[in-house]
Amino acid sequence: MQYPLPIAQLIDSYMKLPGIGEKTATRLAFYTLDMPEQDVHDFANALVNVQTKLHQCSICGNITEQDPCAICQNSARDQSTIMVVEQPKDLMAFEEMGEYDGLYHVLHGVLSPMDGIGPEEVNIKSLIVRLQKQSKVKEVIIALNSTPEGESTAMYISKLIKPSGIKVTRLAAGLAVGSDIEYANSITLKRAVQGRTSL
Amino acid sequence: MQYPLPIAQLIDSYMKLPGIGEKTATRLAFYTLDMPEQDVHDFANALVNVQTKLHQCSICGNITEQDPCAICQNSARDQSTIMVVEQPKDLMAFEEMGEYDGLYHVLHGVLSPMDGIGPEEVNIKSLIVRLQKQSKVKEVIIALNSTPEGESTAMYISKLIKPSGIKVTRLAAGLAVGSDIEYANSITLKRAVQGRTSL
Repeated sequence: MQYPLPIAQLIDSYMKLPGIGEKTATRLAFYTLDMPEQDVHDFANALVNVQTKLHQCSICGNITEQDPCAICQNSARDQSTIMVVEQPKDLMAFEEMGEYDGLYHVLHGVLSPMDGIGPEEVNIKSLIVRLQKQSKVKEVIIALNSTPEGESTAMYISKLIKPSGIKVTRLAAGLAVGSDIEYANSITLKRAVQGRTSL
Repeated sequence: MQYPLPIAQLIDSYMKLPGIGEKTATRLAFYTLDMPEQDVHDFANALVNVQTKLHQCSICGNITEQDPCAICQNSARDQSTIMVVEQPKDLMAFEEMGEYDGLYHVLHGVLSPMDGIGPEEVNIKSLIVRLQKQSKVKEVIIALNSTPEGESTAMYISKLIKPSGIKVTRLAAGLAVGSDIEYANSITLKRAVQGRTSL
């Protein structure tokens, strides 16, 4: 016997989420069946709203309900620094940290020639245009993941900006706080040695 | 900084699912943001449909789109046996097994006086009425989980049915196939010894 169609369709949908296999999807579908009606309606609306109500900020590329986004509109933030991140969730991780007070630029991807992602597919051109317009910017902090794609994207952006005389920096690499040297990979250890600081 | 409202609402909804905490919910919400629009619409519809399109079968209590359900309508199935299960997913597990060809009765819960669940809150009365009407029934198989609530519900139903002369059986208890004796609990071992069969 097959599951009734509405259940089967919901199982299919749950299975499209990352890390959710058939067993978990089935459990979630049956759980949904017994959830309060209001919760299920809210859930369905939230799913649709997250795509229809959010747009990219025309200045920095962050996801936002209004344009420009709250960060770009906030004149109290340090207008001389732009941090380049890959995804809106990276931006939000830095905002949660609470120590950074400058502006952002969200690339929505990194260069990956193997996957056909070149400079046109990510939000790099708008960064260069922005730097030409906003003469206040003195530093661009590149905060991309230390993957090969992240590294080459950082190099690419750095080369584009350098001629303008704006300082380009990148995040310190090294051992994560609380991590074990024993389990760190050799590239991380190399960076940690290269970037050692005096005590 | 807070997440934009549509993201925050979706995170809240994902967190209402069992086994999904804030970190996973956040990851799923951002993943949803980048999902194909059609998939998200299908997902939202599936959520609502699972509650609006499915109803309980008026005969057996199984969830179904049409009433009576496909199993109750199927005259080729053995009409002399009714298997009592707690939830529709239990019924589906037996259907997936494929060896059982009789009818079902879905209780939608088990007796649990501590949680205020008495005989009126589960689908027991309709079972008794059904047995009085369907004179063909010769055996009722009680297939409830071996929890204290499952056991006492089995006893309660058994006592109600016994006077009618209909045979009441329950599933064999013992070691799960492939499980380790070392890790079995003592009640399971006791049942396995009590129910030993000759080789």
